Amino acid sequence: MNKNAPIHRPIQTPDWVKHAIFYQIFPDRFANGDPRNDPENAQPWGSIPTPHNFMGGDLQGIIDRLDYLQELGINALYLNPIFLASSNHKYNASDYFQIDPHFGDLTTFQALLKESHSRGIKIVLDGVFNHCGRGFFAFNDLLENGEHSPYRHWFHIKGFPLHPYDGKKPANYDCWWGIRSLPKFNTEHPPVRRYLLDIARYWLEQGIDGWRLDVPNEIDDPDFWREFRAVVKQTNPEAYIVGEIWHDASAWLQGDQFDAVMNYLFRDLCVGFFAQSQLTATQFLRRLDRLMKKYPEPITQAQLNLLGSHDTERFLTLCGEDRQRAQLAYLALMTIPGAPCIYYGDEIGMEGGKDPDCRRCFPWNKKQWNRPLQEFIRSLIALRNQHAALRDGAFIPLYSNNEAGIAAFVRQNESERFLIIFNNSDSRWQGSLPMKKLEPLPKTWVNPLTQETYPCENRALRLHLPARAGVLLQGSY
Amino acid sequence: MNKNAPIHRPIQTPDWVKHAIFYQIFPDRFANGDPRNDPENAQPWGSIPTPHNFMGGDLQGIIDRLDYLQELGINALYLNPIFLASSNHKYNASDYFQIDPHFGDLTTFQALLKESHSRGIKIVLDGVFNHCGRGFFAFNDLLENGEHSPYRHWFHIKGFPLHPYDGKKPANYDCWWGIRSLPKFNTEHPPVRRYLLDIARYWLEQGIDGWRLDVPNEIDDPDFWREFRAVVKQTNPEAYIVGEIWHDASAWLQGDQFDAVMNYLFRDLCVGFFAQSQLTATQFLRRLDRLMKKYPEPITQAQLNLLGSHDTERFLTLCGEDRQRAQLAYLALMTIPGAPCIYYGDEIGMEGGKDPDCRRCFPWNKKQWNRPLQEFIRSLIALRNQHAALRDGAFIPLYSNNEAGIAAFVRQNESERFLIIFNNSDSRWQGSLPMKKLEPLPKTWVNPLTQETYPCENRALRLHLPARAGVLLQGSY
Repeated sequence: MNKNAPIHRPIQTPDWVKHAIFYQIFPDRFANGDPRNDPENAQPWGSIPTPHNFMGGDLQGIIDRLDYLQELGINALYLNPIFLASSNHKYNASDYFQIDPHFGDLTTFQALLKESHSRGIKIVLDGVFNHCGRGFFAFNDLLENGEHSPYRHWFHIKGFPLHPYDGKKPANYDCWWGIRSLPKFNTEHPPVRRYLLDIARYWLEQGIDGWRLDVPNEIDDPDFWREFRAVVKQTNPEAYIVGEIWHDASAWLQGDQFDAVMNYLFRDLCVGFFAQSQLTATQFLRRLDRLMKKYPEPITQAQLNLLGSHDTERFLTLCGEDRQRAQLAYLALMTIPGAPCIYYGDEIGMEGGKDPDCRRCFPWNKKQWNRPLQEFIRSLIALRNQHAALRDGAFIPLYSNNEAGIAAFVRQNESERFLIIFNNSDSRWQGSLPMKKLEPLPKTWVNPLTQETYPCENRALRLHLPARAGVLLQGSY
Repeated sequence: MNKNAPIHRPIQTPDWVKHAIFYQIFPDRFANGDPRNDPENAQPWGSIPTPHNFMGGDLQGIIDRLDYLQELGINALYLNPIFLASSNHKYNASDYFQIDPHFGDLTTFQALLKESHSRGIKIVLDGVFNHCGRGFFAFNDLLENGEHSPYRHWFHIKGFPLHPYDGKKPANYDCWWGIRSLPKFNTEHPPVRRYLLDIARYWLEQGIDGWRLDVPNEIDDPDFWREFRAVVKQTNPEAYIVGEIWHDASAWLQGDQFDAVMNYLFRDLCVGFFAQSQLTATQFLRRLDRLMKKYPEPITQAQLNLLGSHDTERFLTLCGEDRQRAQLAYLALMTIPGAPCIYYGDEIGMEGGKDPDCRRCFPWNKKQWNRPLQEFIRSLIALRNQHAALRDGAFIPLYSNNEAGIAAFVRQNESERFLIIFNNSDSRWQGSLPMKKLEPLPKTWVNPLTQETYPCENRALRLHLPARAGVLLQGSY
């Protein structure tokens, strides 16, 4: 017996995630609930986003809009960074233990936690552990004390004096992507490790339900993430750890590091198939199936599936504002394994190109909302919330037809079976879906939204789908 | 009747101050109670102080030494700054709401407050409201965002970009004494005012007993200090406000701004007379009398009297290490109106020239202590603590003799009378002190430390004093 053989423990991810509908909020832009804490130079709500401007959104705004989110069916929030930082996005933290004063304070945040939890809404924060801002005390200490600084080993310093602000000189310390405003931590230095783990622990103790990890691949040290997981799970065994990894994340998803990642690979498929028609139906279905089998099942069910984020163009914009295409993607988002995550305002048809344009202010005047899109998404969320098979059922690819642009898959558990069909073409489709794989065969299929029924004859389902339309049907026995 | 005539309210200062014996602590150098929070590059305890080095002193160290301080007779502490800052002196705050991690955290500070208060020891903090450090978030924001910063008006900015670190360019913002590491706040900007007053309120709510104000004359705005006083006294009517003013402080001592100032004018007299023999006995006594009458009595009784601080040479050093001269000054310090303040370690004979040499580590090895000096100071403190007349009695100059270097004054209330006599010369003095001013005349004078008695004959007291010696006598009726 090889004593060095790895011990295989079952992979565990928090159960609640597979039942979650996430909503991602960029706090400066979602809602302004307390004008008293606005930046002094806040722009009028709805101004065009620039890299530097502030709109006044805050935590009180989120609290004020929990009713709205609850009506939409949301039960988890992922907040972009909320700790003290000079930028509007706050990925350059000055103080990880302080809520940015433009967003509120610890009391406001505790009110948000309390109000959210009383509604069954979880809160996941954005954790930026790879780098900080130049205003972070230990980095500032190096500017002040130079080689006499006690924080000499907290960063990767190549010489003194540091010149973080003089544009003419190259950075003489490591920073993220060479951007001097984002000095990279030396996570191999034990006091830094302790400090970062203390941050993780502190906010979990305050009551948060998980961490979204910013650029965790930049901390090229699996042991750091194993320690991180240990600290997080010791503090709250049900806390969620979701990494920002845009590509194959197998290295981090062995059960010893993250619970899941932001599923940008799923988004890529939706962009390729629904938004830009660059994939065939068969390619889409096959790649989707491969993606659903890529990681162990507990991880797949805990993935954070998304169509867009603060780092991407808005999905509707990528669809050329074609609501039908976007709706097909939402039908997929809401029916595959893993937790759907809606980027704030996508549900009312907000538009936006690349950063910073994708970070516009949420228009609270309902006249500016795309109500059909919103209703469509709300009804899908309700279906997912009602039916366990859509959350933790098996995923079975069923049918694809490249000529017609048809793809279909099934979600099922022991008591329920759903059929999800996409017509991603410009033509109405009338055809027959083979049902051979399904046992037992339902007598009829029912559209739970319209109550329309479709008989199953000769082990096939005959139906027609309008151009660029999808449908979800429930098997009836 | 002139409706604009000022309303004269009686001047009020906190009663406890006249009963206080202060001890000033420079936290990095007093005692290291928790090596875990030491700066990573802390020097061995007792190393020679430089502008940049750290020794590891902390709040736990103060807690651990409260027994020592209590035995000495101390009942109030004035702490040099303890908020997050990169320097060892911490006059360049990065965060006014955070205890410097090298000193502890809020929990440690609360323990210090609790332990001190349970022993009847008050705590006064050092408040630096004129300027901050370059690591302060609003200043950093200006470096990060330039003209887009929401904190555009928090400082006196003369152009962008700021160049606070590039040695070749002159500062393009106001700073204290032109020192670029200390940007001066724009206290006329209402959000800044609110912010600074919030700091004052916050720490009083945490339980501190007062503020020592750093360079308050630099905030040339009486209304700011009136608002400050209102906030402080609303939060804790018994809180003490003592300003660092080195010269005539009448402008701030009208009852509407500070309770008192650090009495450097008293120190000047002691340096001139006892340490350096540059003043005659008559000059000393006359100027001391003038100083004791300079401000309204409630203020005089609340003055923070001192012989040295973190900003001066140590008094014993100024005396050329002559303990006798120093003891004469301590006799004056402990017997005049106003609260005596001992700079840490002065009582055991610590030496030190100008900053940073006056900030050496307290040697906890008793073999290094000047025990006679310590015993002398302890016995004077005990006398002051025992006898109310030494704390709030009237001050009456009695006699001076330039040839013999003799000066004498009386402290008395309705039930006690003390006579304090200084022989500040190299010769033994035998002479007679006229007692005409004193009614009723005591039968004898008793030295409470030795129980020696001196009869009062022909309305005069005959006594002899060794060279460079003083005596305190209590009238007996």
